[in-house]
Amino acid sequence: MDLKTLLEQYKAGKLSVDETLQALSSSGMDELGFAKIDLSREERTGIPEVIYAAGKTAEQVEKIALRMKDQKKDVLATRLTEDVYNQIKSKLPGAVYNPLSKTMVYQTEKKIINQGTICIVTAGTSDIPVAEEAAVTAGFLGNNVFTIYDVGVAGIHRLFHRIKAIREARVIIVVAGMEGALASVVGGLVDKPVIAVPTSIGYGANFGGLSALLSMLNSCASGVSVVNIDNGFGAACQAHLINKL
Amino acid sequence: MDLKTLLEQYKAGKLSVDETLQALSSSGMDELGFAKIDLSREERTGIPEVIYAAGKTAEQVEKIALRMKDQKKDVLATRLTEDVYNQIKSKLPGAVYNPLSKTMVYQTEKKIINQGTICIVTAGTSDIPVAEEAAVTAGFLGNNVFTIYDVGVAGIHRLFHRIKAIREARVIIVVAGMEGALASVVGGLVDKPVIAVPTSIGYGANFGGLSALLSMLNSCASGVSVVNIDNGFGAACQAHLINKL
Amino acid sequence: MDLKTLLEQYKAGKLSVDETLQALSSSGMDELGFAKIDLSREERTGIPEVIYAAGKTAEQVEKIALRMKDQKKDVLATRLTEDVYNQIKSKLPGAVYNPLSKTMVYQTEKKIINQGTICIVTAGTSDIPVAEEAAVTAGFLGNNVFTIYDVGVAGIHRLFHRIKAIREARVIIVVAGMEGALASVVGGLVDKPVIAVPTSIGYGANFGGLSALLSMLNSCASGVSVVNIDNGFGAACQAHLINKL
Amino acid sequence: MDLKTLLEQYKAGKLSVDETLQALSSSGMDELGFAKIDLSREERTGIPEVIYAAGKTAEQVEKIALRMKDQKKDVLATRLTEDVYNQIKSKLPGAVYNPLSKTMVYQTEKKIINQGTICIVTAGTSDIPVAEEAAVTAGFLGNNVFTIYDVGVAGIHRLFHRIKAIREARVIIVVAGMEGALASVVGGLVDKPVIAVPTSIGYGANFGGLSALLSMLNSCASGVSVVNIDNGFGAACQAHLINKL
Amino acid sequence: MDLKTLLEQYKAGKLSVDETLQALSSSGMDELGFAKIDLSREERTGIPEVIYAAGKTAEQVEKIALRMKDQKKDVLATRLTEDVYNQIKSKLPGAVYNPLSKTMVYQTEKKIINQGTICIVTAGTSDIPVAEEAAVTAGFLGNNVFTIYDVGVAGIHRLFHRIKAIREARVIIVVAGMEGALASVVGGLVDKPVIAVPTSIGYGANFGGLSALLSMLNSCASGVSVVNIDNGFGAACQAHLINKL
Amino acid sequence: MDLKTLLEQYKAGKLSVDETLQALSSSGMDELGFAKIDLSREERTGIPEVIYAAGKTAEQVEKIALRMKDQKKDVLATRLTEDVYNQIKSKLPGAVYNPLSKTMVYQTEKKIINQGTICIVTAGTSDIPVAEEAAVTAGFLGNNVFTIYDVGVAGIHRLFHRIKAIREARVIIVVAGMEGALASVVGGLVDKPVIAVPTSIGYGANFGGLSALLSMLNSCASGVSVVNIDNGFGAACQAHLINKL
Amino acid sequence: MDLKTLLEQYKAGKLSVDETLQALSSSGMDELGFAKIDLSREERTGIPEVIYAAGKTAEQVEKIALRMKDQKKDVLATRLTEDVYNQIKSKLPGAVYNPLSKTMVYQTEKKIINQGTICIVTAGTSDIPVAEEAAVTAGFLGNNVFTIYDVGVAGIHRLFHRIKAIREARVIIVVAGMEGALASVVGGLVDKPVIAVPTSIGYGANFGGLSALLSMLNSCASGVSVVNIDNGFGAACQAHLINKL
Amino acid sequence: MDLKTLLEQYKAGKLSVDETLQALSSSGMDELGFAKIDLSREERTGIPEVIYAAGKTAEQVEKIALRMKDQKKDVLATRLTEDVYNQIKSKLPGAVYNPLSKTMVYQTEKKIINQGTICIVTAGTSDIPVAEEAAVTAGFLGNNVFTIYDVGVAGIHRLFHRIKAIREARVIIVVAGMEGALASVVGGLVDKPVIAVPTSIGYGANFGGLSALLSMLNSCASGVSVVNIDNGFGAACQAHLINKL
Repeated sequence: MDLKTLLEQYKAGKLSVDETLQALSSSGMDELGFAKIDLSREERTGIPEVIYAAGKTAEQVEKIALRMKDQKKDVLATRLTEDVYNQIKSKLPGAVYNPLSKTMVYQTEKKIINQGTICIVTAGTSDIPVAEEAAVTAGFLGNNVFTIYDVGVAGIHRLFHRIKAIREARVIIVVAGMEGALASVVGGLVDKPVIAVPTSIGYGANFGGLSALLSMLNSCASGVSVVNIDNGFGAACQAHLINKL
Repeated sequence: MDLKTLLEQYKAGKLSVDETLQALSSSGMDELGFAKIDLSREERTGIPEVIYAAGKTAEQVEKIALRMKDQKKDVLATRLTEDVYNQIKSKLPGAVYNPLSKTMVYQTEKKIINQGTICIVTAGTSDIPVAEEAAVTAGFLGNNVFTIYDVGVAGIHRLFHRIKAIREARVIIVVAGMEGALASVVGGLVDKPVIAVPTSIGYGANFGGLSALLSMLNSCASGVSVVNIDNGFGAACQAHLINKL
Repeated sequence: MDLKTLLEQYKAGKLSVDETLQALSSSGMDELGFAKIDLSREERTGIPEVIYAAGKTAEQVEKIALRMKDQKKDVLATRLTEDVYNQIKSKLPGAVYNPLSKTMVYQTEKKIINQGTICIVTAGTSDIPVAEEAAVTAGFLGNNVFTIYDVGVAGIHRLFHRIKAIREARVIIVVAGMEGALASVVGGLVDKPVIAVPTSIGYGANFGGLSALLSMLNSCASGVSVVNIDNGFGAACQAHLINKL
Repeated sequence: MDLKTLLEQYKAGKLSVDETLQALSSSGMDELGFAKIDLSREERTGIPEVIYAAGKTAEQVEKIALRMKDQKKDVLATRLTEDVYNQIKSKLPGAVYNPLSKTMVYQTEKKIINQGTICIVTAGTSDIPVAEEAAVTAGFLGNNVFTIYDVGVAGIHRLFHRIKAIREARVIIVVAGMEGALASVVGGLVDKPVIAVPTSIGYGANFGGLSALLSMLNSCASGVSVVNIDNGFGAACQAHLINKL
Repeated sequence: MDLKTLLEQYKAGKLSVDETLQALSSSGMDELGFAKIDLSREERTGIPEVIYAAGKTAEQVEKIALRMKDQKKDVLATRLTEDVYNQIKSKLPGAVYNPLSKTMVYQTEKKIINQGTICIVTAGTSDIPVAEEAAVTAGFLGNNVFTIYDVGVAGIHRLFHRIKAIREARVIIVVAGMEGALASVVGGLVDKPVIAVPTSIGYGANFGGLSALLSMLNSCASGVSVVNIDNGFGAACQAHLINKL
Repeated sequence: MDLKTLLEQYKAGKLSVDETLQALSSSGMDELGFAKIDLSREERTGIPEVIYAAGKTAEQVEKIALRMKDQKKDVLATRLTEDVYNQIKSKLPGAVYNPLSKTMVYQTEKKIINQGTICIVTAGTSDIPVAEEAAVTAGFLGNNVFTIYDVGVAGIHRLFHRIKAIREARVIIVVAGMEGALASVVGGLVDKPVIAVPTSIGYGANFGGLSALLSMLNSCASGVSVVNIDNGFGAACQAHLINKL
Repeated sequence: MDLKTLLEQYKAGKLSVDETLQALSSSGMDELGFAKIDLSREERTGIPEVIYAAGKTAEQVEKIALRMKDQKKDVLATRLTEDVYNQIKSKLPGAVYNPLSKTMVYQTEKKIINQGTICIVTAGTSDIPVAEEAAVTAGFLGNNVFTIYDVGVAGIHRLFHRIKAIREARVIIVVAGMEGALASVVGGLVDKPVIAVPTSIGYGANFGGLSALLSMLNSCASGVSVVNIDNGFGAACQAHLINKL
Repeated sequence: MDLKTLLEQYKAGKLSVDETLQALSSSGMDELGFAKIDLSREERTGIPEVIYAAGKTAEQVEKIALRMKDQKKDVLATRLTEDVYNQIKSKLPGAVYNPLSKTMVYQTEKKIINQGTICIVTAGTSDIPVAEEAAVTAGFLGNNVFTIYDVGVAGIHRLFHRIKAIREARVIIVVAGMEGALASVVGGLVDKPVIAVPTSIGYGANFGGLSALLSMLNSCASGVSVVNIDNGFGAACQAHLINKL
């Protein structure tokens, strides 16, 4: 119920002052005590509430997932360890767990928002888990996804071999650790928005992904923006918002 | 000339092997000695070559600008001090300098790529120069732009007053210094891609914009990506690539 | 015995010079060898000596707790692992362990210093352990506490739903990880002191809570001060000193 | 006009739907284009809108100050250089500029909210400008202030000489650079809330105040909270919110 | 054999040119392949070669210790885990392991270099392991040591109670984590050199001891120097060099 | 097939346009899905593709190694845990695992590119694993290697004892943790390129090798360059490229 | 007057209670309002109060210096710009300004505490100003000082040329920027305490002296302690406390 | 005079013991008081003593340069401001100042060590000053140098256009700011040693060149080593040592 309708109903006497005030602020929230499920999030932001499972107990994940299911919502959980998944899977028949991306999806029907595609590119084999988190998330949100892995700049011809396919996507997610140079190189070759995801892959002075993060923020290519280190989920969310325009 | 055409002409004998190889690599570059102007950049990346004037002498800026003008290219220079502008303006009649954003635009014809709008929001008055760099750039690239300034979260009702207008844009650029919280708040209220620009505004432990940068990278809202500190230009470029989809 | 009384007794011959000097410096300290219990701390600072259990052996915690109990002092231990608690609980019948906040309380009588309340708010579910450390500490010190969890700015209506309750508290503790924006938003909506607690919750470039810490220190809202990362205990102590004014 | 009144007036037909919606969000804001003055801030947060002059032009500061004066508001500007003040002072007869704290105050009547005092303590002589920013701000907000300067721990007897006076305040602001130890020492001697302000005073590895900031955040005294480096204004705001309880 | 003697013997024909050159560079070194024991270190630097056991295998520690014993050298190993000690103790009868400081000492005769004492002070109970590393090392090198633990500034009277004893030492080692303020306070009260050892004790923004390190480096007391975080051994070495003057 | 040959064959009609384009970009790449083996890397860069095993599963390492073996390539895997090696060793008879350097080498024939030698020097015993990674890599690439361990500057005569041998090498790799001073000292004594490898050995404020890294980057000796922390492999690669000149 | 004497006089009736209490805390302090001169500092800490002129106005420096002179104290001011000195020199006839070290000394009589010497060594020419601050301070405090400049490890024979002289000092101060290796090399060659002073000399990733600071803290030589970056004064103070033992 | 000769002369009675000892350590050093010129540096390290002019006065630079000229040494000064050059140029007729690289060269005869070339590549126009410092230094040392400027990865075809020329060099120096990706791309395309020089060019989160530095240290290409930020001189020195092999 939007604000205007709410006021109309109030004026028409269908709602008391207190009911109106309560509705004004509480709409779209389901209270679990330890969590407040944001039921209107998809309508408001284009992305539904998702369970970020890191730091939550198995019991908490289960309760939130079941409540969402009761509300006829699709469920996506990220950063879900295999151990926690095993504790809750009997309660969520039909949920699909992906050990590589550490995601669980429960979706009654696969949706596709449009014909555009999101291309996810990694620099190395070790970046694949982050890329898979992005791929699962983007797919869950209704996007066509295709992935191209291990085309880092140490052997740049591997990238050129696939550049045509990359250029045909509507949005490109580049996932890279170490020096993260792939984001700049791709950004200099395509005319589509590039979302760069630094990963914590590397050793020595990579400082948990800081080297790739700074590299991507300082990219000399001008159509590149960046999300947090290892944040495949966030990259997919923004790619989705772009793709559904 | 694209790769396939090049090879066809070679096969047809119109180009020698050496001419073909040279063309394969040198197309779209204009050599100035101290700089190589990337003439094919717009075709390739959707964004033309732009003069980043910081660290360049007045003479260098002038030479590049004139060469681009000779090539019938529009000219945008960023980070151009008023002092440098004054040294070169007599050579570039018709160029428009904006002292707030430190940009110079020479454009024969105003272009508009489509009806979509880019909304640029700032948290405070001090963030306006960065926002203006974004606004000038986005306008130069052919986008409709509107700006909403000084709606930071210390008085969040100022934001709510304008939220309807913000939600109608296709892309939103949020420019904020200090703690950068505005990006998360906006990201939680709209269903469009949000590009966050941290600024170096603030004092104490803001460390030249690091506080806002980290804040934005760690945003709890999921459709937010980030560009470099004070990089209004980069934000506008990505917003443009999104808007022209 | 205060300084003036001490000198009077000395002049009256009730104390020798040496006794006076000793008393001048040693009053209010109980020596355990590896630790010196600060018995006058509550009188001096308004907050009694508390056992910070991290880095102490079970034997050390037990000895300090028993000595305090012997001295008729209430006992609060923080950062106490369940493992250590299990080793000592038989010696401290009546002590209550809270596994969520990792605190142990031994208190003969629940005290309430006044009618004011301290409101503890978290941005997410994962911030609850830190909030609970604050809640247990504030309760132990004699304050009325109420908690509101999971009202982060990604769904800001959840906060507005409870803002009236928050505004009625005398002191507000905001516990948030990731970008820590909740502290600024709450600070901009209430006329009471806000104590912000950054948490180490998050991933990527949050650097163990640094992102939330910097964000809170740079808050654009002007009534916000900050304690150390994850320091629910410290926030509760200051809230207590404020509430008992 | 509060929310309930607004709805009542709407129901009574005194306001149209559009007028109500507009009022719901725009109340308490005065639009200047480059700035939106938050007129309801004092009512909402206990602290009026203040002009943070760093990064604002003389013209902007003047316009905001005059508009506030027109609205019968007292005016406080911080981080105002003497140069900017000299450009605008003829327009603001009666305003008082303090070159040490770089503040300008225009206040028709000195107000005192209650009998409580705020004590401001510095470690050294070089910390005085930050302390003066706090003193001017706290006085402007209606608090009794007294200051004790240069009592750092290198000569700790200087502090003990004044400890009785410090203990009698309701709130204590400790301003210190270098290693910031004074905050912990004071915190261990008083039963009142201590707000620590790290300053950027020092040399070598103080990194612009980082050493004092980290020191204060890690204080072993439990009633200490911290504001940003050199942020005397913020400390005074929180001290004011505490003192007016 | 010193340089002059060496040359004399060469001139006298007792040594060939090659023997002289070899002797010039190889004197005082015992080659183990994976390690070169520096037999002349004590003569040269006043401190004998000590086994830093971190990162060495049990076999390596054993071989070095036995070789030193064969050379009639006393043996001190630091950072020796209990596990490694248990693997080698049967080969080193008479060695004494201290689990708190993680040191092993094999010494045929207790030596005392002079009557001066080194006083080791800690701020808290958790700093004791680092202090014990210093105490064992200083004792091994022949110094009288006495320790005063848990006198941090949160209860500064505990320090004053012992200040006379502290002032009587020739050198003072202050071991403190968290904000490290104790070093400045002690430094302001004594006329002897103070060596400050920051520890990694603390939580939140202490960054593995960085807060105490920066605090101590920025000490406002002027007779304080600093060694590395948790480096009790290094502090003891310098204290020894000072004490034996 | 090089570019010119490719175009000649195309002109001669031996290749279609599409075949030519495909060949232009795909030459020298073997696709495994999760990885793309860069078969032309040795020809292009002088260093063959090497398996960086960190973050790869045993199955991935095995598949890549077998494919390389099928292609008649020698195999080097670095950062290979003993655990992973044990899972795959039965499939790679003849492979040699080195537990100290965590490398696996499968090489049908030992090659030697020339008579020049690479000298690898360490400051301490704990730096040996990194040095061994360099030694195994340099040997695998066909270089003569000799190693000198434990000659750090705390006992600088140990270095002088071997300086003649060091000066005879063509390239010198200096591996050092802690303060990394050995690189500067060696750099000041030889007229050959010195490649410095900082290691993460040390404690306290070494910050995972940052102290040695910064020290080496700031070396006052002018012929020193640096690779990443603990990156023995990278140092050996550059030493090899230099040695084969 | 010491504590015991004070109490005796009180008992004897020579002092009232109030006089005693006042004396207990105020002894040895001279109040200037903006500063409190610590007159008992030399007696208490072995080092007199010194004027740290950075951040003080010419007027403040002058007032403190004159008051100290009135009290028959010698005066040392550090970090005194030539500009400030010129403003005050007419009031302090007899004061000696050293533009290299930026120090001013007013001393009625040169004192020498004993025959021991302090040796000050620099790595380069650019480190001399910091070394001179140490030299002036140590001389002012009554020590024999000799200096050896420009003996950094890039040409280590320059150091060996002077090592005998260095070894004869009682305390050695090593001043070095860039990688700071000189401290470790000297520390490995002498049996006297070495105080290392990192300087901010260098470029690139020296981060204002951080590289030398970390290098010195991580020194592999065991008798080295460190003071703050560029803190020649602090090094001299500790060297003085050591030398006067 | 080498060590062996020295000993022979001693044995032959041509040198006394004292003369021998003196010669052993003082050979090859010219004492100026504030500096010790290292005359044997070229023989020892392959690179002559060079004047690093930053932080030296005009008088010091002049004295060192003249002394070197007197010794028949060629002179190279780096980081020499135009202002200092103007003060000394009349004393050094024949010296050539390069304002772009801020270098001064006085060389009686141009030397060429061999036919190999050093190729210096920059990513952008703003990196040219650092590249020129490298070019002047390498030329001074006797190397053939050629430069290729402005071929950064935002327009990677500019690089490919010149890759043949780059591959023909013996050593390649890559100079790049911002994200520094060019080093990895070049490293992946050539079989010669690549020395990467990060520059401080860029804005926002480039932190004075840290982004490019970390990027280059973490390069996925394996033949790349790194020198300090903006250190064109150091890169040229190592390139020279490699080229003269």
